Amino acid sequence: MKEIKVTTKEKLQILDITEEIEETISGVNEGVVVAYVPHTTAAITIQEHDTELWEDLLNAYQKLVPIKGNYKHNAKYSGMPSEQNAHSHILSSMIKPFILIPVVNDQLQLGTWQKILFIELDGGRHRTVKLLTISKGDEKP
Amino acid sequence: MKEIKVTTKEKLQILDITEEIEETISGVNEGVVVAYVPHTTAAITIQEHDTELWEDLLNAYQKLVPIKGNYKHNAKYSGMPSEQNAHSHILSSMIKPFILIPVVNDQLQLGTWQKILFIELDGGRHRTVKLLTISKGDEKP
Amino acid sequence: MKEIKVTTKEKLQILDITEEIEETISGVNEGVVVAYVPHTTAAITIQEHDTELWEDLLNAYQKLVPIKGNYKHNAKYSGMPSEQNAHSHILSSMIKPFILIPVVNDQLQLGTWQKILFIELDGGRHRTVKLLTISKGDEKP
Repeated sequence: MKEIKVTTKEKLQILDITEEIEETISGVNEGVVVAYVPHTTAAITIQEHDTELWEDLLNAYQKLVPIKGNYKHNAKYSGMPSEQNAHSHILSSMIKPFILIPVVNDQLQLGTWQKILFIELDGGRHRTVKLLTISKGDEKP
Repeated sequence: MKEIKVTTKEKLQILDITEEIEETISGVNEGVVVAYVPHTTAAITIQEHDTELWEDLLNAYQKLVPIKGNYKHNAKYSGMPSEQNAHSHILSSMIKPFILIPVVNDQLQLGTWQKILFIELDGGRHRTVKLLTISKGDEKP
Repeated sequence: MKEIKVTTKEKLQILDITEEIEETISGVNEGVVVAYVPHTTAAITIQEHDTELWEDLLNAYQKLVPIKGNYKHNAKYSGMPSEQNAHSHILSSMIKPFILIPVVNDQLQLGTWQKILFIELDGGRHRTVKLLTISKGDEKP
C-alpha cells in the first residue's frame, strides 16, 4: 500500500494534499481511491482550496467542540500536556479519518472546486496518509 | 461512470434519491455502490424518508453552523450574494460528499428505514451525483 | 455478506467491535473492509478505546444535538416513547453508518490507537453490522 507523509505545525491546520495523492494513482481504468488517516487526532475531508474558508472551518470546528472543556480524557491525563486533546478525538470521530473518490483513467473525478484536505486537530505532528486504489471488479456485462 | 441529475429549489433541502440510484445498478453479484457528490456546498447521507425529520435535520445543521455568521469566506466575497455560503462549505466538510452501501444481486442492502438523501446546503441549484459500483475482486476462497 | 450482532443497553453507548470484525476477514491480499450499519438511529466510527474518552464523545454529541429539543419528528409521534429519538437520527445523519479500512493479508491497517466503534444513539437495542471485503481488482501493472 502506498502512503504519503504530512508535517503539520499548528494546533489546528488544514493542508491540501490533492496533488500528492493524484501522483500515486496508476493503473486504474475505473475505480476509487481510498485515503486513510491512521491517527485518532486528525481527519480528512473534501473541500475548496480557500485559506479564508479554511479559517472558517477550523473556527467552526472549535466552536462546536472547544479545545478547553470539562473532558474526562483530559482530566485522566492531567499533568500530561500532550494528552489535553479530547477535542481532537471528538472532532476526528465525527469528521472521520477516510475519504473515497472515484477515479477514471488514473484521474481523480473531483468536482471543479474540490480538493482533498488533511485536517490536523492536534498538531504540530508528523502524519501519514495511506492510499489504496480499487478498480471495478469482474462485473457481468 | 454513471450519474444522476438533481435540481434543488430551497436554500437548504433534502431529496430522497434512493430509487434513481438503485435503477443504475446492474451486474453486481456482491459489492458496493459509491455515490459521490462533486460539489463543495452540498453533501449526501443515509437516513429515513420522513419530511418532518428532514426539517429537524436542516434545523439542527443550521443551529450548529448558522447561515449568518462572522465568516472570512463571506467577507472576502462581500458584495457577491452567491458567495455568502461559508455555512454550506463547513457543513459539507463535516457531513461529506460521499456514501457507500453494500449491494447483493443488484439490490441495495439498506436497512428497513434507510434511504439515500441528497443534502442541498446552498440551493437552488442543478446538481450531479456520480455513481460507481465495485464488485468483490478475486479473493482466495 | 457477513454480519455481526451487537446488543446495547444504554440510550447512548459506544462498543468496541474491532476484534469481531477482524475475525471475519479472510482471503484478502490487499483491499478494504466495509462495515455498514443498517440502522438510522446508530452510527459507526474509528477512534481510541478509552472509556473516559467515550464519555466525552457521547457528552459532546448530546451537547451538539440534545436528546430533548423542539423536534417535529418527536411531535409527530408524541405519545410514542420509542419515537422520541430525533436526536439519534440527526447524529446518525452526520456521523454516518459506514466506515472503510484498508486490509493487507487479512489484517486491518488501523493506526496504533485506532479501534472500530459502534455508536448506539437510541438504545438499548439489538443491532447488526454488515461486513464486506473488497480486494483490489485487476489493475494494470
